Amino acid sequence: MKRRLVLLCLALGLICPVRAASPETSAVAYPAGYRKWPLVKSMVIYSDKHPLFGQFGGLHHVYANAEALKALTKGGTFPDGSVLVFDLLEAKDENGAYGEGARKLVAVMAKDRARFKATGGWGFEAFKGDSETERLVKDPAKDCFGCHQQQKDNDFAFSGYKP
Amino acid sequence: MKRRLVLLCLALGLICPVRAASPETSAVAYPAGYRKWPLVKSMVIYSDKHPLFGQFGGLHHVYANAEALKALTKGGTFPDGSVLVFDLLEAKDENGAYGEGARKLVAVMAKDRARFKATGGWGFEAFKGDSETERLVKDPAKDCFGCHQQQKDNDFAFSGYKP
Repeated sequence: MKRRLVLLCLALGLICPVRAASPETSAVAYPAGYRKWPLVKSMVIYSDKHPLFGQFGGLHHVYANAEALKALTKGGTFPDGSVLVFDLLEAKDENGAYGEGARKLVAVMAKDRARFKATGGWGFEAFKGDSETERLVKDPAKDCFGCHQQQKDNDFAFSGYKP
Repeated sequence: MKRRLVLLCLALGLICPVRAASPETSAVAYPAGYRKWPLVKSMVIYSDKHPLFGQFGGLHHVYANAEALKALTKGGTFPDGSVLVFDLLEAKDENGAYGEGARKLVAVMAKDRARFKATGGWGFEAFKGDSETERLVKDPAKDCFGCHQQQKDNDFAFSGYKP
């Protein structure tokens, strides 16, 4: 059906309204205002002894919107509408301390079971640096869910909330 | 006048309502709910190369209430009612990363120019670990303001907000 519609669009010289194979790819919105959402937890990945240093080296914070926070504090799976943000900054190593440097990326996971069936009900995206439009994720199933699926028992989220 | 009231209380066998010399000492309330306030910034002080390692070694977050956040984002001095929280956790060094450990202390600075004239308009307190009642500050002028006064040009706060 999609294929027919694409062919039809091509035939008519139209910009095709169908996002073909992966509607998830660019369907996750930039999480406007997340810097004022509650902080879930933070970490500094500072050495290549850590398996995620190459990808996520630096100082990161995880933020939750109101829906996600409810699940984190009260337990249970995340309801649709839940959004978790992974905000990765450079870790500035100065004088025996790691402080916050420039933003490297803002990664997002947004729960919508109907739209993101193939990736555990979560849509994944990442935005480069301080940009709200420059998207980094090519294949969410591979780039993001490949790792997150090990957290199936935790509804695919890594971070727990510490009061 | 205070002295007379104290003597009168003693004479009458009453619990005296006057907090004598240092009303600031225990006048700062525990900042209930601060974990859901906006995060200002974070840092890991991990080595004794840092001058504050002995006192504040670990992973700390600074949170701001709504009044303090306005000043941090829009500039100007902090209005009365502003509260900043310094939440110090142990930094767990594992596998090339510093994660969050147990809470070491929760330090608070609360703005009230009338009550805290002697310390730049700010009241200072700190609470041990997860306790909301076990107070750590004996002499706020010496224990806290002694260091904060170097930040006079920044209304005595160290942390700046990064959007």
